Amino acid sequence: MNGSATYCDWVAVDWGTSALRAWAMRGHECVAEERSDKGMNSLEKSGYEAALLELVHPWLGSGPTPVLVCGMAGARQGWAEAPYRAVPCKPLAGKGVRVATADSRLSVTILPGLKQEDPADVMRGEETQIAGYLSERPNFDGVVCLPGTHSKWAEISAGEVVSFRTFMTGELFDLVARRSVLRHSTGAGWDAGAFADALADTLSRPESLGGKLFSIRAETLLHDLAPAAATARLSGLLIGAELAAARPYWLGRELIVIGAEPLATRYCEALELQGVPARHVDAETMTRAGLSAARSAAREVAE
Amino acid sequence: MNGSATYCDWVAVDWGTSALRAWAMRGHECVAEERSDKGMNSLEKSGYEAALLELVHPWLGSGPTPVLVCGMAGARQGWAEAPYRAVPCKPLAGKGVRVATADSRLSVTILPGLKQEDPADVMRGEETQIAGYLSERPNFDGVVCLPGTHSKWAEISAGEVVSFRTFMTGELFDLVARRSVLRHSTGAGWDAGAFADALADTLSRPESLGGKLFSIRAETLLHDLAPAAATARLSGLLIGAELAAARPYWLGRELIVIGAEPLATRYCEALELQGVPARHVDAETMTRAGLSAARSAAREVAE
Repeated sequence: MNGSATYCDWVAVDWGTSALRAWAMRGHECVAEERSDKGMNSLEKSGYEAALLELVHPWLGSGPTPVLVCGMAGARQGWAEAPYRAVPCKPLAGKGVRVATADSRLSVTILPGLKQEDPADVMRGEETQIAGYLSERPNFDGVVCLPGTHSKWAEISAGEVVSFRTFMTGELFDLVARRSVLRHSTGAGWDAGAFADALADTLSRPESLGGKLFSIRAETLLHDLAPAAATARLSGLLIGAELAAARPYWLGRELIVIGAEPLATRYCEALELQGVPARHVDAETMTRAGLSAARSAAREVAE
Repeated sequence: MNGSATYCDWVAVDWGTSALRAWAMRGHECVAEERSDKGMNSLEKSGYEAALLELVHPWLGSGPTPVLVCGMAGARQGWAEAPYRAVPCKPLAGKGVRVATADSRLSVTILPGLKQEDPADVMRGEETQIAGYLSERPNFDGVVCLPGTHSKWAEISAGEVVSFRTFMTGELFDLVARRSVLRHSTGAGWDAGAFADALADTLSRPESLGGKLFSIRAETLLHDLAPAAATARLSGLLIGAELAAARPYWLGRELIVIGAEPLATRYCEALELQGVPARHVDAETMTRAGLSAARSAAREVAE
């Protein structure tokens, strides 16, 4: 110890497609946080170190501070590739990939994502949230639903991710609501009844999705459908189609929804409408818990 | 007659969302054509006359030339609203909506589209193609499929459009192929086997669409899926889902596909894989035939 106060003893980082979030950590406690929009989509390989330093430099001491990263920074087109681990496997294990930095105050490790050979599927970041949840409930046996741009459904047993499946529901919602002809129909606000009705439509008749989408536009033109109802209906149609496809995951299993608001609550409501109780757990909290668990595991190996 | 040669005696116009097409007509014969990208999406109300003149001014004599327009120019946000006619009804009937122009060489009429109250649906332009087909086969009894940005399926009987349904298949294909994460997977070329397999997937299990879409990305990452196969698979998944929803339309009916290449042939192939023979008719030819039929009907009324 050189007597100067160390602001944090490590940094937890969630580096996604469109956002970068960093937390200054003392043990398992978060003492500060920063975020920027410098996600993978807006960065060249050479830009990652500067984007990270921009957020975390006030937290760094003179010696190297461990930085533990999950998410898309580990993709092939990210900062440095952290090759996928194949399921069935524990959500996080091993040491991750060390990344060389120009600034000696950083000691960066990127955690790998998971892959499934058949049906082909991949995740980067969600495995850390699952690991966070399992760090609190190591004996959990059931299914984790992670709503988002690319929703994931993961079957968990004996501490391992057994299988998983990804749906492009969130990305389809954004594209259709913002860029398709339905952009003239959707708007701010929410209509819970329209959401529930649309959900029931595609859950019982998933093939009706394509036709029901354009009906939103036609009902605006012919029957002055309210923008809030149009938005809720679009969301209900897409989530209903996802639930129809994910039925083998949620039927008869204990179900946890790890996600951000308001989307996580919509998934919980949708599942409750099917008589399936789902417990909501905050995604960001689980990301930090997963990175903390990985940090503890790495220190145990080191000691 | 003043002795100067009249280039054409009327002008046929198809004014869509993203394109404007005009044909110089002598009776039912097309003697010249022009097109531009000045569709509804790129025009203010005040810009329509200039966009039209830009294409057709070399064809105009000194007196007023009749210009017959179908498509989105008749939408509320188009040049002048031509209120929808309600099905069941003949695809084209009545005189259309006259539009005042600053240039006295133009005498513009916009043809109305069709609406269906329940399930809510609308079309603008396709009714003219259907009218074109019926002008050649007035006793046709069956179903017309019109693939495109917004695919339409219309049930035709006794010269009338009885019912119809719209699917956003083409627009979803463009959005997903160009703007979603799958833009990193899709590419030029075509893989007929991948198309047929994907089509069979969503035709038999339409709820699988959401998961199968992301599989395209995962197979690129894990198994080096070829860009041409990714494109064909995306197309097959979306067309298969549409065919699953449109099954009540195509099962056991005579079926005509009115569309442009290569999409029309893909729909015909997809239907033939289901054992359903479909005859392809060119969309542009049908548009001109429909506008010609409307022109003849208007002259009969006038004389």
